[in-house]
Amino acid sequence: MNISIIGLGLIGGSFGLALKNSFDHLTIFGWDNDSANLNKALDLGLVDHGLGSLDEALRRADRIYLAIPVDAIEALLPEVLNNISDDQCVIDFGSTKGSICEQVKDHPRRHQFVAAHPIAGTEYSGPDAAFAGLLPEKVMIICDREMSEKKFIDEFEGLCTSLQMKTAYLNSEDHDRHLAYVSHLSHAIAYGLSNTVLEEEKSDNKILELAGSGFASTVRLAKSSPDMWTPIFFKNRKFILEGLENYLKDLNRFRDLLEEKDVDGLHDFLNRGREIRKILE
Amino acid sequence: MNISIIGLGLIGGSFGLALKNSFDHLTIFGWDNDSANLNKALDLGLVDHGLGSLDEALRRADRIYLAIPVDAIEALLPEVLNNISDDQCVIDFGSTKGSICEQVKDHPRRHQFVAAHPIAGTEYSGPDAAFAGLLPEKVMIICDREMSEKKFIDEFEGLCTSLQMKTAYLNSEDHDRHLAYVSHLSHAIAYGLSNTVLEEEKSDNKILELAGSGFASTVRLAKSSPDMWTPIFFKNRKFILEGLENYLKDLNRFRDLLEEKDVDGLHDFLNRGREIRKILE
Repeated sequence: MNISIIGLGLIGGSFGLALKNSFDHLTIFGWDNDSANLNKALDLGLVDHGLGSLDEALRRADRIYLAIPVDAIEALLPEVLNNISDDQCVIDFGSTKGSICEQVKDHPRRHQFVAAHPIAGTEYSGPDAAFAGLLPEKVMIICDREMSEKKFIDEFEGLCTSLQMKTAYLNSEDHDRHLAYVSHLSHAIAYGLSNTVLEEEKSDNKILELAGSGFASTVRLAKSSPDMWTPIFFKNRKFILEGLENYLKDLNRFRDLLEEKDVDGLHDFLNRGREIRKILE
Repeated sequence: MNISIIGLGLIGGSFGLALKNSFDHLTIFGWDNDSANLNKALDLGLVDHGLGSLDEALRRADRIYLAIPVDAIEALLPEVLNNISDDQCVIDFGSTKGSICEQVKDHPRRHQFVAAHPIAGTEYSGPDAAFAGLLPEKVMIICDREMSEKKFIDEFEGLCTSLQMKTAYLNSEDHDRHLAYVSHLSHAIAYGLSNTVLEEEKSDNKILELAGSGFASTVRLAKSSPDMWTPIFFKNRKFILEGLENYLKDLNRFRDLLEEKDVDGLHDFLNRGREIRKILE
């Protein structure tokens, strides 16, 4: 079976490497609209063969994986579905799912599309950041499964299991609402903190060298690629704005408790927040 | 030389263990007002000997280290200084320095006090969380050094160097202003995010199990001890409120850009935030 991976960054590259390591019977083709990325991916052995165009990627492969920014997925997916034959299947790895699924919901080949989201990543991007260990033990969320042909879902689920991934199912709207809270909001917060601290400390970077691991942890996601994250924020705009409003309320509550010198109230606020330790290790 | 460590939690316990590992000629006494903590610290070998009271800790030691919450340091320090003799020195490890230094600035034994802050920690607390590797390679900030007798500063600096720590000097007001931005604000943000997400997902913890490493990283500090952090927020209230106002402005700016669908503006905002990668590895 032939696989084409469109987009050879952190996710596409790591996926290619993991497939190469786990399956002997697959041939992995790759394409990236940035030829430097494609060459780098070939140098690093992330895929078996590079391709010259998207058309070729569609022609050569039984399964086509889209590992590109969410706005590019949305722009490309209808065209890809228009150009595949009955036996082919397209799987996307976008971090938002609602608008992508909405856009193709009436497409005659919708059942040949699997909407997926691997909950895996780092703050780095590009083929250099790819590594085989990114996906094992992580969760692959599959959205609106009833819209995809069962054999394609079963096959994809089997592949995820072979890669030691867990699978979970959500509808695409629930996915976007929850991900706004447990992923996208964290990125907004980190970018915001970085802006604040860089502005405050702009005259003296030495101070930032004094910062400890706590700051590094909280601000880490601000190193993420703006080209990837700008479209995510806009494609999930409604739920992120809702989550951000709730978060701003909580931060304002913290501020008020501190301003009003409400020691017990602030202690309670911290105690409630600390409950997260029961869920996250 | 005899050392007394008052407070055998993460910092005091790790410091005791590091001293025991690095120096043969030191005898390390420990005291904690929670006898369970003291017994645990002795079981774990964090100090050589436990003591029955603060008085005994002062009587038995040449150097007294205060590794307790900042409000407790402020309450205890004048009494400790009142009760030491000419050859003794007191060093505190509090995360805020302004109000502590202000309180004893006219004390006749002020020169026998070194105001220090090891930039080291984890989200865990108590003697169980202590480990010898916490302090090496980290920074020890020493505040208002000119107020301390030179021989005590030199000795303490030498001890930090032996523990493979770097030293840095700030006045206590600058310390508190900078730490508000590069440490305390991160904690406020994490506690806030945890409150928001727990409230949103309270009916379904399974969703939180789908959260990735990004959320875990951003919210990690919310696992920190409220007993330690409530006093830090209040002792550094002025600068934390200032930092929080600036942060809220940046988050509101992010929100406005998203609401107004200003794609280029949001991309610029993320790009500015991403500059942090040039400073933090």
